[in-house]
Amino acid sequence: MLYYPRPLATLLEQLEKLPGVGPKSAQRLAFHILRAPREEGQKLAQAIVNVRAQIKPCARCGNFTDLELCDICTSPRRDSSQLCVVAEPRELLAVENSGEFNGRYHVLNGLLNPIEGVGPEQLNINALVRRISTEGVQEVVLALSATVEGETTANYLVNVLKPRGVKLTQLARGLPFGGDLDYADQITIAGALRGRREI
Amino acid sequence: MLYYPRPLATLLEQLEKLPGVGPKSAQRLAFHILRAPREEGQKLAQAIVNVRAQIKPCARCGNFTDLELCDICTSPRRDSSQLCVVAEPRELLAVENSGEFNGRYHVLNGLLNPIEGVGPEQLNINALVRRISTEGVQEVVLALSATVEGETTANYLVNVLKPRGVKLTQLARGLPFGGDLDYADQITIAGALRGRREI
Repeated sequence: MLYYPRPLATLLEQLEKLPGVGPKSAQRLAFHILRAPREEGQKLAQAIVNVRAQIKPCARCGNFTDLELCDICTSPRRDSSQLCVVAEPRELLAVENSGEFNGRYHVLNGLLNPIEGVGPEQLNINALVRRISTEGVQEVVLALSATVEGETTANYLVNVLKPRGVKLTQLARGLPFGGDLDYADQITIAGALRGRREI
Repeated sequence: MLYYPRPLATLLEQLEKLPGVGPKSAQRLAFHILRAPREEGQKLAQAIVNVRAQIKPCARCGNFTDLELCDICTSPRRDSSQLCVVAEPRELLAVENSGEFNGRYHVLNGLLNPIEGVGPEQLNINALVRRISTEGVQEVVLALSATVEGETTANYLVNVLKPRGVKLTQLARGLPFGGDLDYADQITIAGALRGRREI
């Protein structure tokens, strides 16, 4: 049992619960907080409390928001004919921050995973179907991970949505930016070849 | 400018002020806080506020403490004839947590650094001299970094303390645990040779 004054031990314990924070980095963070001006710690503490108190899912798309509907759902400048489907709000932010998409979003809150008991009824799919018919959606962009769960979910959505006459697309498979061909796996290379484009 | 709901943007901004936390890890931490039970965020926030509000320097040795005197200064089981001198409280904790020292400590609050204008009067040296004469100290262990500033400070302390008839020691120089001889620098190897021990 290491020796630390009690308030410091408590802080270390809490910091070590964070992802990617081991004992050494918890110590570094704690010593920084101890040395920094008191306001800095207070602002950080307040921001932590506020984010949980104020952020909730957008009632329409499931995006993180501190309002009833998120900025993207209420913006008149977004193209409501395009709907991008993501698994989680943090993936919505990743797509949004790529700057390439100007439609609206729909968060599934997960991916199909039969082994872990996640079926279609656990995901936000009924609302998706409803939005497609009521919001004049013409293209659904499936922005799901290139994993077994992502593919399974995409296949399921294709079966559900195809009969509704909506255009379905998915993110391209290919080399990531900075990705070295030497280090790319065969499935990535195969996907990049199938999706090759004339230049 | 990336898009984030306001409370999330505020949290990211505060997290990115922490050492070693860039945009990506700030995001990972923020999403963890968003998904974790609300109490977890509250406990973390409270621990951050408490550590600044409750931790102060021990009035005798300068260790972190939430009391007037730290646990080590008040413990009757510590050997008051040995006094370990460190630059910072976090180094005191590192020495203490090695489990090899059962004396008391003295924190200098820095190291001599003439270039940055840190002279002896900026360090907690007068109190050290006073403690040596009033607390029956027989050995002073200098546990200072093996850097130019550490050596300069050690030399200064030797000059000040030697005339007082106290035994002065310093941490051994040598290979760190797990240190590969191939990768050790010449100064480390020279120090390890000078300090070689019969086995």
